[in-house]
Amino acid sequence: MKVYIIGLGLIGGSMALDIKAAFDGVEIFGVDADQDHLEEAHRLRIVDQKATLHEISNADVVIVSIPVDAIVAMLPEILDLVHDDCAVFEVGSTKAKVCQVVSGHPKRRNFLAAHPIAGTEFSGPSAAVRHLFKGKTNIICEVEKTAFKLQERALRIFKELGMRIRYMDPISHDKHIAYVSHLSHISSFMLGKTVIEKEKNERDIFDMAGSGFESTVRLAKSSPAMWAPIFEQNKENVVETLEEYIANLEQFKQLMLQDDFEAIHQEMEDTNHIKEILKGIIVNS
Amino acid sequence: MKVYIIGLGLIGGSMALDIKAAFDGVEIFGVDADQDHLEEAHRLRIVDQKATLHEISNADVVIVSIPVDAIVAMLPEILDLVHDDCAVFEVGSTKAKVCQVVSGHPKRRNFLAAHPIAGTEFSGPSAAVRHLFKGKTNIICEVEKTAFKLQERALRIFKELGMRIRYMDPISHDKHIAYVSHLSHISSFMLGKTVIEKEKNERDIFDMAGSGFESTVRLAKSSPAMWAPIFEQNKENVVETLEEYIANLEQFKQLMLQDDFEAIHQEMEDTNHIKEILKGIIVNS
Repeated sequence: MKVYIIGLGLIGGSMALDIKAAFDGVEIFGVDADQDHLEEAHRLRIVDQKATLHEISNADVVIVSIPVDAIVAMLPEILDLVHDDCAVFEVGSTKAKVCQVVSGHPKRRNFLAAHPIAGTEFSGPSAAVRHLFKGKTNIICEVEKTAFKLQERALRIFKELGMRIRYMDPISHDKHIAYVSHLSHISSFMLGKTVIEKEKNERDIFDMAGSGFESTVRLAKSSPAMWAPIFEQNKENVVETLEEYIANLEQFKQLMLQDDFEAIHQEMEDTNHIKEILKGIIVNS
Repeated sequence: MKVYIIGLGLIGGSMALDIKAAFDGVEIFGVDADQDHLEEAHRLRIVDQKATLHEISNADVVIVSIPVDAIVAMLPEILDLVHDDCAVFEVGSTKAKVCQVVSGHPKRRNFLAAHPIAGTEFSGPSAAVRHLFKGKTNIICEVEKTAFKLQERALRIFKELGMRIRYMDPISHDKHIAYVSHLSHISSFMLGKTVIEKEKNERDIFDMAGSGFESTVRLAKSSPAMWAPIFEQNKENVVETLEEYIANLEQFKQLMLQDDFEAIHQEMEDTNHIKEILKGIIVNS
């Protein structure tokens, strides 16, 4: 099996490592617009060979793991290039635009839209790790539009990666993921910004930061090149979540100004049951 | 050495475990208004003996590890009860009010105000763990108001716990800690609230949550009994940080509405240097 991975960052690189380990005789080819990343991925033995985009005509599987703006821009051409028996899947964090852009493509049945809910705040080939996807959720959209045989091939890979599969339509995916992923990133970036702004005048602040702060701003280390296009593509949903979040913060502030600390206690108690909800989430070890 | 610990939650319980391990012949006495907690701490061997408040007249060291409203309410009485050679320190997350309430107390020199920046989102005696304080920062306020000999006794304990000491005045402490700790908790609670509200109608949302979400809402598991009084005591500073945070979120939203994703990219890039800042923070293992 010849697997071409376009984009050798955290997700593409980590998939390469697990696929190499899981499938006998698999060959992993790397494609990346960034030559340094390509060299690095080759040197780190994440890919067996360096390749160029038009070589994907030899692929049995193409994995597109690049920022979502690049996915939308490149996916039609990628489908043009692959042969009729090749499975192409992408792993972006938005689904509506990508499903839309290939909806009328003659090779639509070669394509599967997937979103593995896995990642860390790190990026680039050096961030790639084994077992990143183990126990994580993989959301597949419009599965019925993919050829049976190619669905199977992609699902076999996801199974070897240890992922559990959920099927969902792309509109619902984008709406829900805004709440449980995109909003968290903005909350974290803006928290980091607020504290950094303060720190300019108060050098001692970060000496006082503990693991709680570290946890809430961890996502502010994330790659802007990956995240700006996600926010752009999912603008409507993200703005909605952001408005609800700001309204909740504003209400909390009002309760404080009114000295209604009983209501604040109640707010926190009501939110405490997030404990039970979070139990199901598998955290990177 | 007889050490009395008033309040056997995460912090008091964890201190008990480390002190017991570090000092030969130390006896740990537990005092807690919650009889179930006291029984539990005794059963878990966190304390050697159960005790009552007025028995602290026998103490060489009293550690006050209860919510900050209770600290302010009880500390004068605690100082009344201890003998002249007893070191009393508390470990609350605010410092101005507590330093104020004992400022004219005849036993002010028996008291040391400390804030070990350590904790987890868990609470109660069962949350107590060894080595919680290792490598963490401990902020001491108004050290000059504590008797030399008793400073020394307290510092020896902090040293055995593995903490690094920073000295600061209580007003600065409360101002800075609002940014790097109190705001993170509100950000996390309100993020949890926003998503839980949505989830009432959309049961699938949490199935899509990954480790990024887990990280940003982790603090929403924290104890309301501990946190409501912190927000109350540090109201002015917390409201200020909250206003800056909301303004930053609002500006981010405006950039999105204006489709200025270049500026959004820049915002994130500017905040990315939080990476370097966070390197110094020791996370619980």
